[in-house]
Amino acid sequence: MTPLDTIIRGGTIVTASDTSRADIGIKGGRIVMIGEDLGPDLYDAPEVIDATGLIVVPGGIDSHVHISQPGEPGVVIADDFESGTRAAIFGGLTTVLPFCLQAKGQSLREAVTWYHGLAEGNCYCDVSFHLIVTDPTPQALGQDLPALVADGYASIKLFMTYEGMKLSDRDILRTLEAAKTSGALAMVHAENDDMIEFLRDGAEARGETAPKYHATTRPIPAEREATHRAIALAEVIGTPIVVVHVSNRDAMEEIRAGRARGSVVYGETCPQYLVLTADDMDRTGFDGAKYVCSPPPRDTAQQAACWEGLMTGVFDLYSSDHCPYRFEDEQGKKRPAGVKSFRYVPNGIPGVETSLPILFSEGVSKGRIDLNRFVALTSTNHAKLYGLYPQKGTIAVGSDADLVLWDPAETRTIRQDDLHHGADYTPYEGFQVTGWPVRTILRGKTVMADGALRADKGVGRYQGRTPHHRAAAP
Amino acid sequence: MTPLDTIIRGGTIVTASDTSRADIGIKGGRIVMIGEDLGPDLYDAPEVIDATGLIVVPGGIDSHVHISQPGEPGVVIADDFESGTRAAIFGGLTTVLPFCLQAKGQSLREAVTWYHGLAEGNCYCDVSFHLIVTDPTPQALGQDLPALVADGYASIKLFMTYEGMKLSDRDILRTLEAAKTSGALAMVHAENDDMIEFLRDGAEARGETAPKYHATTRPIPAEREATHRAIALAEVIGTPIVVVHVSNRDAMEEIRAGRARGSVVYGETCPQYLVLTADDMDRTGFDGAKYVCSPPPRDTAQQAACWEGLMTGVFDLYSSDHCPYRFEDEQGKKRPAGVKSFRYVPNGIPGVETSLPILFSEGVSKGRIDLNRFVALTSTNHAKLYGLYPQKGTIAVGSDADLVLWDPAETRTIRQDDLHHGADYTPYEGFQVTGWPVRTILRGKTVMADGALRADKGVGRYQGRTPHHRAAAP
Amino acid sequence: MTPLDTIIRGGTIVTASDTSRADIGIKGGRIVMIGEDLGPDLYDAPEVIDATGLIVVPGGIDSHVHISQPGEPGVVIADDFESGTRAAIFGGLTTVLPFCLQAKGQSLREAVTWYHGLAEGNCYCDVSFHLIVTDPTPQALGQDLPALVADGYASIKLFMTYEGMKLSDRDILRTLEAAKTSGALAMVHAENDDMIEFLRDGAEARGETAPKYHATTRPIPAEREATHRAIALAEVIGTPIVVVHVSNRDAMEEIRAGRARGSVVYGETCPQYLVLTADDMDRTGFDGAKYVCSPPPRDTAQQAACWEGLMTGVFDLYSSDHCPYRFEDEQGKKRPAGVKSFRYVPNGIPGVETSLPILFSEGVSKGRIDLNRFVALTSTNHAKLYGLYPQKGTIAVGSDADLVLWDPAETRTIRQDDLHHGADYTPYEGFQVTGWPVRTILRGKTVMADGALRADKGVGRYQGRTPHHRAAAP
Amino acid sequence: MTPLDTIIRGGTIVTASDTSRADIGIKGGRIVMIGEDLGPDLYDAPEVIDATGLIVVPGGIDSHVHISQPGEPGVVIADDFESGTRAAIFGGLTTVLPFCLQAKGQSLREAVTWYHGLAEGNCYCDVSFHLIVTDPTPQALGQDLPALVADGYASIKLFMTYEGMKLSDRDILRTLEAAKTSGALAMVHAENDDMIEFLRDGAEARGETAPKYHATTRPIPAEREATHRAIALAEVIGTPIVVVHVSNRDAMEEIRAGRARGSVVYGETCPQYLVLTADDMDRTGFDGAKYVCSPPPRDTAQQAACWEGLMTGVFDLYSSDHCPYRFEDEQGKKRPAGVKSFRYVPNGIPGVETSLPILFSEGVSKGRIDLNRFVALTSTNHAKLYGLYPQKGTIAVGSDADLVLWDPAETRTIRQDDLHHGADYTPYEGFQVTGWPVRTILRGKTVMADGALRADKGVGRYQGRTPHHRAAAP
Repeated sequence: MTPLDTIIRGGTIVTASDTSRADIGIKGGRIVMIGEDLGPDLYDAPEVIDATGLIVVPGGIDSHVHISQPGEPGVVIADDFESGTRAAIFGGLTTVLPFCLQAKGQSLREAVTWYHGLAEGNCYCDVSFHLIVTDPTPQALGQDLPALVADGYASIKLFMTYEGMKLSDRDILRTLEAAKTSGALAMVHAENDDMIEFLRDGAEARGETAPKYHATTRPIPAEREATHRAIALAEVIGTPIVVVHVSNRDAMEEIRAGRARGSVVYGETCPQYLVLTADDMDRTGFDGAKYVCSPPPRDTAQQAACWEGLMTGVFDLYSSDHCPYRFEDEQGKKRPAGVKSFRYVPNGIPGVETSLPILFSEGVSKGRIDLNRFVALTSTNHAKLYGLYPQKGTIAVGSDADLVLWDPAETRTIRQDDLHHGADYTPYEGFQVTGWPVRTILRGKTVMADGALRADKGVGRYQGRTPHHRAAAP
Repeated sequence: MTPLDTIIRGGTIVTASDTSRADIGIKGGRIVMIGEDLGPDLYDAPEVIDATGLIVVPGGIDSHVHISQPGEPGVVIADDFESGTRAAIFGGLTTVLPFCLQAKGQSLREAVTWYHGLAEGNCYCDVSFHLIVTDPTPQALGQDLPALVADGYASIKLFMTYEGMKLSDRDILRTLEAAKTSGALAMVHAENDDMIEFLRDGAEARGETAPKYHATTRPIPAEREATHRAIALAEVIGTPIVVVHVSNRDAMEEIRAGRARGSVVYGETCPQYLVLTADDMDRTGFDGAKYVCSPPPRDTAQQAACWEGLMTGVFDLYSSDHCPYRFEDEQGKKRPAGVKSFRYVPNGIPGVETSLPILFSEGVSKGRIDLNRFVALTSTNHAKLYGLYPQKGTIAVGSDADLVLWDPAETRTIRQDDLHHGADYTPYEGFQVTGWPVRTILRGKTVMADGALRADKGVGRYQGRTPHHRAAAP
Repeated sequence: MTPLDTIIRGGTIVTASDTSRADIGIKGGRIVMIGEDLGPDLYDAPEVIDATGLIVVPGGIDSHVHISQPGEPGVVIADDFESGTRAAIFGGLTTVLPFCLQAKGQSLREAVTWYHGLAEGNCYCDVSFHLIVTDPTPQALGQDLPALVADGYASIKLFMTYEGMKLSDRDILRTLEAAKTSGALAMVHAENDDMIEFLRDGAEARGETAPKYHATTRPIPAEREATHRAIALAEVIGTPIVVVHVSNRDAMEEIRAGRARGSVVYGETCPQYLVLTADDMDRTGFDGAKYVCSPPPRDTAQQAACWEGLMTGVFDLYSSDHCPYRFEDEQGKKRPAGVKSFRYVPNGIPGVETSLPILFSEGVSKGRIDLNRFVALTSTNHAKLYGLYPQKGTIAVGSDADLVLWDPAETRTIRQDDLHHGADYTPYEGFQVTGWPVRTILRGKTVMADGALRADKGVGRYQGRTPHHRAAAP
Repeated sequence: MTPLDTIIRGGTIVTASDTSRADIGIKGGRIVMIGEDLGPDLYDAPEVIDATGLIVVPGGIDSHVHISQPGEPGVVIADDFESGTRAAIFGGLTTVLPFCLQAKGQSLREAVTWYHGLAEGNCYCDVSFHLIVTDPTPQALGQDLPALVADGYASIKLFMTYEGMKLSDRDILRTLEAAKTSGALAMVHAENDDMIEFLRDGAEARGETAPKYHATTRPIPAEREATHRAIALAEVIGTPIVVVHVSNRDAMEEIRAGRARGSVVYGETCPQYLVLTADDMDRTGFDGAKYVCSPPPRDTAQQAACWEGLMTGVFDLYSSDHCPYRFEDEQGKKRPAGVKSFRYVPNGIPGVETSLPILFSEGVSKGRIDLNRFVALTSTNHAKLYGLYPQKGTIAVGSDADLVLWDPAETRTIRQDDLHHGADYTPYEGFQVTGWPVRTILRGKTVMADGALRADKGVGRYQGRTPHHRAAAP
């Protein structure tokens, strides 16, 4: 009998469908055995981890994080690969999927190469890249994309808003067609940019420049409209899409309606739509800027709608949309010197480290969703949709030993002082949670335990992916 | 007692809500009396028209016709004001609303002046103009439009498709805001142009160039998407819109959904969506081109949906979207010499003369709608929405004596040989109808009777309009 | 020229579709002339009524009132035909449609005869009878109903709740089939009786006996369920129904869904669902009993839904569901001696006199609906659906001269002291209205003017009706 | 190391969420180990089953089968526990849940005892019982039901149709309340009995007595109405229900709508709604009777709707509703001697043996659903909802070793001659399938392999269940 490297004993193993009491045997970074009683003496395991009283879940996968992504000139995102992935493992994640942003005029391959250079040797968890297509040239769509998909870059992201990133409907159609041909799954940021620009100009003309006007100038109809349009464009091509960061019931209804018409549409929501509201952007001083992200958080009725979406299957994915900026720091620009309008507050908030504890606490501990749904939403569905499954996303023989141990009884108050990300604040300051990740294991190796780092940077590896297939969908 | 000019005796008077047996007394071109028995001797009326056995309805108003409108270079629309309004009075209409198309670079006022020049002295029925806004400059929106609305040009039309005419979402928002401020009601042609272009390129690349591919490259999702978007844009501004020429259930559902969200959205459908299908574009030779219009006719299930919309109130308006081209004529271009693709077939079909008989026959005679609904759909609602009411659109004391006498029992077969429009064919050739307009009276004067012209051109006058108000809506 | 009896000069005439400034000439109780200037000298009219500045509408028709209807032993309804119809003419009505309640074991004909005896010679406005079918014997359905419909009793009402009145689904099907065959239009009171009984028993077991528990034990699902079921039963038979006194959005959606499936379903709502809420039943002491009716008023969100239904066409009819009981009077039983539970509070509230002023004020004066819609909802649609049109329900040559003059500027505070019904309270005490009926004319004769009675009882007559036909629907 | 009893080597293990290549170690009838390579020599396993190339799924659970259930006098159901469970293991099932039918006047406990007597010692697979409540006396609801739920009878079934079984709404409410209190999950057969009786009487009166009139007299509105009502009744109580054997889109929409209102509603469909249609009841002679079941199969559009429901989550459960009668046999009564009307054809068709192969072939092999969804629909969700999980319903350490090996490549034609049930025909005669269960293992013991029985009757055991909890829902 081959000896095991590590045995996790006594935990409750949870997958997207099942819950069982069993030990897990790890060898070579993979799960090789799940058994009722894997006595360490029998299997010669040098490391035995006691999981008694703990929940053992597949390592979390956050498929929507922004790391080291360039923004407007002078605006620097607060996390590089080192700090971003360090925060991730403290948040119960073992894989994150940041974006390779294609600059205008840049080839997709160049973008990929540049990001690889930034990530290489600096990661605490595994990473894989989506491609943000901003310049869908014939070369990009006809040659680069198929080659990159074949190389493991199996997903793309399209923007319907943001100057310099947004695509016309025509370009979205062309890009979705290329995605269909190559097998890439397309994520869509759905907000109607023209509406936003129009409303923003109007607000500024009326002197409405405080952070709270970020919310009023990106209203629900702007998101609903773009969601309908994105789904219609995908319907014309006949290819699936993921509508990311959905914030409200109207957009959810568009997803439901698209499915009822026979389209394959996946939905994602994020913690900010479950526990923040537009009122947070109306905090004193310029503090409202700390909550500026797009789409903006709405109100408590929309929070309830998003919970319903998580419970009933409108949403397949729960991600952080981690996009951190520093507030006090000049470079971060959340409080930019001399800036008069919310227009110049960079869009995005930190969340990679707090995302899963918020869902565990508000969802599982409060009885809205069960543990299996938690696993599906935070790991398995990401792995399946984006082509990491079965290597990632579950606890099964043969899969990577990416495991996180949660103490369901531990209560915490979220404090910036305790976090490991690069931002200088958290929008969830003071938020109370029940349930906490106490150990993170990456391919068999403990990288975080009891709040302490247990690995050096570079332990995380890049992971290529295989194209999404409809049949593997959640 | 002032003597009457004309008495219409013995008919059944129908308005949008009522049906009664009464005589109508006309003086100075207006209705001044409705009575049980207006004996001509009592009122000294020189003209008495016997309407025994006939239906007397308010003169039809077709608020969607294209006359003398320039198209692509070398393509000439088949009707000028003389032929177009002559056809109208034979079709039971007394008012038509063509469009003043603003050319790029042209001021709205210049466009209006140009069309007035064409219409002046040439009309057989009354006319009023919508403004097609293609170049929404600050001057056009900020100064010309308010002035023109004040002058009686109370409605505009926006295109979401057609190169050279389509507006961006941003420009639609700006234009709708100007419409709201000035009181103009906005009509929207809702099809997603990018989808159409994309599909058209694809079809041509596959050699799919026959007329029938006009339909496949303008599919229902292209119309549904643009309908949703138009309604969302109007929702952001908070102003009503008219979604014109709706062809299918999906788009109808968008109108219903917009109303349920509290928006004021009006809907219009046309005869081509009630009795033609996409199969007509698949006729032998290039004959399919005779049915090419946008949106294209769909199928029998969508015909049934459009009927449901007329019956249940989704549609407030029934218009012809008369846009005639000649088929054999080189200038008409429906059968353009040397042309290989449906792309170059001008969009539009003739219909102003046959529109009301088709609705009367298929709707009233077949029991789908009652006479009151017929009047609402073909006259009253147009007058109310577009600001001609109560001068036009009803049979009431004080209103213009625009009256049409229908013989509900007369059966006809529609034949191009019998029509008076400028086109050289009718898409309804051979269509059987029951119910026919036998006399058309414009402001008290008979202009058509028993198939014969009874007036000289120039009898029709331009009519200014007052802005639409919500409370006057159907 | 035959002289006129009466001329109404200078008013603004409003019908369900039109608004015009004209004089009305009356002869023999009917409208015989509508003209621009019916100078009284020209027409020898002995009576000229000055309507300058006033709105002239067709006399209101309240098709849902309970008069002299027997209830539980010892409970006496507060209005007989004299007081009920007197209140009606003060409320702007010229026709009311009470019910002939068939007692178990009684023939429909006997019921009709009994009510005729009560009404004969006692009415201030015209009346016509619906038949409440509680005992659908083969004789009742197969012979009595067809004969009665032929005799002018063209509508029936079915109850899904109330012990002693409710019918099983099977009996509803049998009765609807008989209605279809005979041409009677069926009204349905849709609440699930079993749910109500179950909830009522539970409430009483918990000691929840105050009037407010009337509302909690007749919740929206009880109404929604029965509405769906009634529509489904009618769908199986293929006959139209009227869902009466709809109180909430869920039930409205069932009506919409039924129509979308192709069924002919009419909807009615009442003032209590527009301006009262369930909180009114929680007033101090036993005063909440004054608001007990079924279905119960809901909340402000449901009020808004009902307004939307009036505006968008979900509702075709607006009625009072006048069902008055006295509060202090032992016989009235709203405050019954020794009674411990809301169960014994008779269901129903007075409203016939205040119904139209409330809709005029909250609807027309506040801009939610226009005058034409007001006329459709309060007169024309009732006449058309229930077979009184065109004799009643409009201002047209040949119709009865049932006319009401409203002063749109008059403001009033509703006070029990000013009302003429038989109840000893009004649920609308203190309610402010703008717009008031200042003169009521029945078949040419003024029966109420400036708050004073102008006729003797007996002026009102029974009116037979013709069966409803689909094509005559609103 | 404790030796294993059995090792299944080389198969592909599929659960409701995961797919992995691994060996399974069984001891004491339970799964104790899942490992990459459980070499038999290492574990001293006396039995090694080679699953190379095969799919290993959790044993199927059919939660809707009728066995030994008494019907009308003289009508004998074709399967007793021996034949029924024998057919089950040939069909890939390891657990079936038949019903204990309470006769009127009988206590629930007596019914349970009677069925236990029939099952005891006669089963080839495990069984557990739902309770059919037909006589909801205070004793039954207040005392027997809580005691029985505590004893492991954790679910009940209610009928809205069938004379002698159907409950009134009031009794459904009382029973659902008792279910809520005791923790029992309620299944509902939702068809409006009054509609059916009414339509049946009408059909017979018109001489429409052939089997095909079974379908026309149980139309979709009858099912939709009862589905809406069942959901509304459960909404009033606040307890979950399972709507069983859903046949069409309308009923599906009611489930969706109930969920959107916040209710917990589960849905089940069956093979007859996926591959049969009403036309099957129109076969020559009396052969149509072979397809008579309730609700009846509909048409191909409704088949497509049901597939959509399986794919998108409207349906959580797929069951056979096995209810076999013999066709030629006098006792079976499908072709009863001297019978003139479809009314007397017993409702129900055989299906327990063919149910899973049909779903595997039409669903998995044709790409409509993936293997994980197959497992969820045929095993895991049944176990979770009805309280057998985690003992049953998955492949996990600690669970019963109920396993079925499917050969995904094996093609078969379904033939009555090859089946093992008690009926003398199959409605799926000649149906071609790809994918077949080649071995069935019950608690570690092979009971069927390669089409041969491998165990004696009595190997199947009764399984008590724990009440359903919301959080354990699919």
